[in-house]
Order: sequence, then structure tokens, then C-alpha cells
Amino acid sequence: MAEARTAAGARRGPGRPPGRRGDASATREGILEAARAEFAARGYAGASVRAIARGAGVDPALVHHYFGPKDRVFIAAMDLPLEPEELIGRVFAAGVEHAGERLAEAFVTLWEHPDTGTRLLAILRTAVSDGGNPAFREFVGAELIARLAEGIGGEDGALRANLCVSQLLGVALTRYVLRLEPIASTSAAHVADRLAPILQRHLTG
Amino acid sequence: MAEARTAAGARRGPGRPPGRRGDASATREGILEAARAEFAARGYAGASVRAIARGAGVDPALVHHYFGPKDRVFIAAMDLPLEPEELIGRVFAAGVEHAGERLAEAFVTLWEHPDTGTRLLAILRTAVSDGGNPAFREFVGAELIARLAEGIGGEDGALRANLCVSQLLGVALTRYVLRLEPIASTSAAHVADRLAPILQRHLTG
Repeated sequence: MAEARTAAGARRGPGRPPGRRGDASATREGILEAARAEFAARGYAGASVRAIARGAGVDPALVHHYFGPKDRVFIAAMDLPLEPEELIGRVFAAGVEHAGERLAEAFVTLWEHPDTGTRLLAILRTAVSDGGNPAFREFVGAELIARLAEGIGGEDGALRANLCVSQLLGVALTRYVLRLEPIASTSAAHVADRLAPILQRHLTG
Repeated sequence: MAEARTAAGARRGPGRPPGRRGDASATREGILEAARAEFAARGYAGASVRAIARGAGVDPALVHHYFGPKDRVFIAAMDLPLEPEELIGRVFAAGVEHAGERLAEAFVTLWEHPDTGTRLLAILRTAVSDGGNPAFREFVGAELIARLAEGIGGEDGALRANLCVSQLLGVALTRYVLRLEPIASTSAAHVADRLAPILQRHLTG
């Protein structure tokens, strides 16, 4: 910690007063900046917590202390409003035969909530205009599609998971971005009801 | 025609030489410009061929002569690579029970072709960054979703059609824009095979 504070303090320069709270906040922000640079340069798969720590001038243990493993660092750096590991865990918690229903519910809950919905909308818009940011693509592949595929198993699990994600992103696009009718003014509960069997079919049908 | 040529000629100004071919081309371009302005100002539903003709300084019959009814004027003005009326006609040509399969085939054919695929990609990107251009939204609603809903019938036909369009746009997004794996490197034929039963389920399941 002492080493990290010193490094962050040195980056801040002499003009800003030191202080425990300010140091911790500056160190966290420094790590997130270094993480964004590392993910942009090397993608998600190629990035390492060690290199992010080096970029921020801190010990790797401090990165782990503040954020956890690489997926959590990515989530914090990109300000993602969901944690795939936790989300997919919930989706399969009641058994694979309820995964479609659970996924549909989780999807509308995330998109309907003003805070998470606004952030997801911004992420989707940026992803489309970027034409597929490689780090984001790898993160979705490794953390969302792969975990979903693992939950359903089978040789074509990854393609099933991917088609399932396609259906969800398509509803996000038509309901929240393009606001096509009638889906834009259908109730969230009804959208979830209609999606559940389709997602189940993608996963296990 | 004589009146139209005069109007187009007057707009062109004295610096450019007149000529039959140049006149027709300038008149067409003038109509398309007026159409884009009219659709932007009044949306798709509120726009009229009469107002577009007025904006271009030509007779409404000339607009019809060059482009056809309003949907065709919109298609030409927006440079859309598909005609919903013709497309949906083909989708239902072998009966509603084959509509999923036909739609899946039409979808991959349009997106895989270099010319139409590139134009669709540009339209999707623009639609997302525009956050749902009202004229485009109304056109998709009136010409694509409504025709698809008419083909399948039933009280919830429009929502079924909309979910079907969501699935297709979601695959367009994940395969062609975000290039997520494994769907980005799955063969087009296999994508169509996987989509067909899902689309059929959306439409009639």
C-alpha cells in the first residue's frame, strides 16, 4: 500500500495535497486508466493484471485488492452494469430447464432499470459505432457466451449461447434503441414471457 | 416532363449545360433530395408523394413515373437494398409453414452479398447512432413488420413479427457488426439452418 501511494503521489505531482482518501481514489483511477490502455492495446485475452499494475505503477496485489481478478477489472474499467459470472450463475441456479425464463427476467430487469439500462444503451451504441471493439468482443466471448455454453453443455453449446445472445441484443436494439412498435410499448413482463421459451429453445431445444 | 425539365434546369443554374440525360438525372436527384427532406420533416407516415413533388418542383405523376408509390420513393431516397413488399411476398410464397425457412434464407442472402450487405451494415450503424430515426422506424413498422404480421395473422401477429425482426437484427449485430464468436465464423448456410426453426417459432409457434 505504501509503495502504491508513493507511486500515485508521484504521478499526481507536487501541486495537489496528499491525503489518505485522495490517494486511494487516485490509485483506483490510475489502475482503471492503465487497465483501459492495456485492454485497448492487447485486447481482453492478451491483457494481464500484472501489466495493468505495471502501467499504474502499483503492485499486482493492489489491483486484486481493489477490483479482484481480470474480469472484474474489465467490468470496472468499462463501467459495465453486470457481472457475467454472477448473472450466469443465477440463470442456471434453478436448473438448465429454467435457464430461458431466468435469462429473460434478468435481461428485462437490467434494461428496464434506469441506471443499468442507460449504461447498457451507451455500451451498445458505442459497440456498434466502434464496429466491434476487440477487447469488448473477447470479453463477451470469454465471460458471457463461454459461461452460457458451459451451462448448457454439448458440442454446439457456444453457437446456441451466441444465438441466444443475438436474440437478446436484437430485442435491446428494437425495443430500446430503434424503439420499433409494437415491441417498444409492450410491457416488460410480457416481453420476458415471450422471450423465455425462445431463449430456452436456443439453449436446449 | 417539359415542366419538370424546366424546374430542374432552373435549379441547376446557368453554369451547367442542359441535356436530356443530365436533365433526367438531375430531376431524379432533385426528387430524392426533396424526398429525404420531406421524410426527415414529417416521418414516413406523414410524408406524401404530393409534398415531395412540390419540394422538387415537379408534377406528382413524374415522381410516380420515376419511382412508383411512396414506399419505393423511400427505398430509393434511403438507398435501401431490399423491397419489403417483394421480400415478404417471397417469404410466404410456399405457405406460412415455410416462412421461417424462407426468411432465414433471404436474410443471409442479403447480408452475405457484398453490395447489399455493405449497405445494410451502413443502415444499421446509422440507425443505431441516430437512436431510431422516426421515418426509418415508421417505414420498418409499416412496410416490414405490418406485412409480416399480415402474413401470419392473429391478434399478436405484430408482436410476433417484431420479435422475429429482433432475432434477425440481433444476428446481424453479433455476426456482422460486433463479429462475436462463434457466430461470425459459422457458415451462412448453417446460420440459416439454425435460424429457420426459431423464426418459424416466432411466427407461428
